[in-house]
Amino acid sequence: MAKRFPAETYVNGILSGDRVLLSRAITLVESKLLQDQELAQEVIAAVLPHAGNSVRIGITGVPGVGKSTFIEAFGNYVIAQGYKKLAVLAIDPTSQRTGGSILGDKTRMDSLSVNPNAFIRPSPAGKSLGGVTRSTRETIILCEAAGFDAIIVETVGVGQSETAVHAMVDFFLLLMLAGAGDELQGIKRGIMEMADAIAITKADGTNADKAKAARAEYQNALHLYPMSQSGWLPQVSVCSALQQTGLDTIWNIIAEYLTLTQGNGYFEKKRRDQNLQWMYEAIRQGLEENFYAHQQVKEKLTTITEQVKTGQKSAFAAAHELLRLV
Amino acid sequence: MAKRFPAETYVNGILSGDRVLLSRAITLVESKLLQDQELAQEVIAAVLPHAGNSVRIGITGVPGVGKSTFIEAFGNYVIAQGYKKLAVLAIDPTSQRTGGSILGDKTRMDSLSVNPNAFIRPSPAGKSLGGVTRSTRETIILCEAAGFDAIIVETVGVGQSETAVHAMVDFFLLLMLAGAGDELQGIKRGIMEMADAIAITKADGTNADKAKAARAEYQNALHLYPMSQSGWLPQVSVCSALQQTGLDTIWNIIAEYLTLTQGNGYFEKKRRDQNLQWMYEAIRQGLEENFYAHQQVKEKLTTITEQVKTGQKSAFAAAHELLRLV
Repeated sequence: MAKRFPAETYVNGILSGDRVLLSRAITLVESKLLQDQELAQEVIAAVLPHAGNSVRIGITGVPGVGKSTFIEAFGNYVIAQGYKKLAVLAIDPTSQRTGGSILGDKTRMDSLSVNPNAFIRPSPAGKSLGGVTRSTRETIILCEAAGFDAIIVETVGVGQSETAVHAMVDFFLLLMLAGAGDELQGIKRGIMEMADAIAITKADGTNADKAKAARAEYQNALHLYPMSQSGWLPQVSVCSALQQTGLDTIWNIIAEYLTLTQGNGYFEKKRRDQNLQWMYEAIRQGLEENFYAHQQVKEKLTTITEQVKTGQKSAFAAAHELLRLV
Repeated sequence: MAKRFPAETYVNGILSGDRVLLSRAITLVESKLLQDQELAQEVIAAVLPHAGNSVRIGITGVPGVGKSTFIEAFGNYVIAQGYKKLAVLAIDPTSQRTGGSILGDKTRMDSLSVNPNAFIRPSPAGKSLGGVTRSTRETIILCEAAGFDAIIVETVGVGQSETAVHAMVDFFLLLMLAGAGDELQGIKRGIMEMADAIAITKADGTNADKAKAARAEYQNALHLYPMSQSGWLPQVSVCSALQQTGLDTIWNIIAEYLTLTQGNGYFEKKRRDQNLQWMYEAIRQGLEENFYAHQQVKEKLTTITEQVKTGQKSAFAAAHELLRLV
């Protein structure tokens, strides 16, 4: 662990847009050491009044859909138009198993990583999904306080992390490949209904027509969904990171969404609801961590779990038995 | 509260198929009194080895879709074919607000309620969603032990109860009206992706063609969904409770699903996962109940909630502050 500064140093650094101090504050947020955690919370509390002024965009899609390529092209487009200063974060709790986090290799986003208006931060390693989502959520606050007004949170659409990402962003973009076949099966059920927009990627060359057909098909399917509370009808578009086409359309869709939801109050309401949701979630996590770390619970859990699985003990009786131990 | 019998009396009654003792045991399960609860758990523990031998079917749909009429016609069909002995339960945490539970008025299922092979039990009143789902889950065990080998759990597709029902059944049937318009908006997002089958109701008279068109449309849309772990592709069919048509098709779809999933092991795996899920859920509920009932937490919660909503305090700091109180 690098030397710790006083909280004030991080706070002043972040508020003046200093990348090095921003990065080091994020490292504190990600640390498991109690001392780091306490310092991190002090920094967050101080910068919190300067956070919130951004559009938070979640992007998901299965491996192979071209997420990094898309984010690089899209990020450069958004910055080049003078729209936004962009931070790219990642939630990838699988990185331990696969041996590399999705943004771990920054060279995969060559041109974006050297863009002075971009800040790329890989997924923290060695943490549970709960740990990763908490630190990502707090990293959003730090980046916003440092002046980034567009935050992309990237995740892989195959696990449970998309639900966590969906709960921390304003707009959720699902990347899909053309051809409604086997390749879709990697996407978890329920994700399509979370999407505020679907972008069909790699719509170039011989793939262009297939992508357009897929767009029509998905747009029809989305019409069958129940309307979201926001009053927004999810949009489907096609794009090619290779040919740099369709990026403007996607940005316009996001801008339209913001106009609608900031106008009708949904944007603000969703943010407040998300804040509360995260508080309740953090409480739940804290309660469960303490419970499952309890010595007697640890000793009995395996046996009882087996009895419940095989129907020898009812779920409620088992829970009751364990709860009595603490 | 009626007089309590020894646990043995309920157990013997249930195992011999005595409806009166089954009903009274369910009343114990639904009771909030500690003494009743303890007795109920004793009964459940004793009958548990005799439970499990049924197909559990969840049925949902917005008010107006004709749920009661469908369940009556479908239930009578299933019993008449000699397929099954049927219990119909309901989860309806909204019944307190609307003043009547969905199965509260048994006369709405006139012919089914007098069918000797059917057992209808309304949603318990005056309980939270967590309370209702727990007692319904335990009622399933009691009904199975009493020899009912088809269990229908009915719910309204507008709240959070469908997720709970989905987590306690083998097969989830969504009832929809023809015409993919306004009437769909009452259905909560995410429910369509939970469905193992969709039945378009009221496919009779001038509505028949519209229903068939809707079937094709939904079947196409469902093809776009990611494949379920079970290997099952959700089916869409049309039916008319009025004309008693399409009920055989729906039963055949369920039978096909059972053949597939009992053959590939998914059925058994899902049941085990559900058992565990309910244990963890019951633990979570127990922990949270104790926490939020804590005097100091109760005193501080409102203020802190307000601070989190308005962004004065981060979600994690707020959670930490509250957790320190207990």
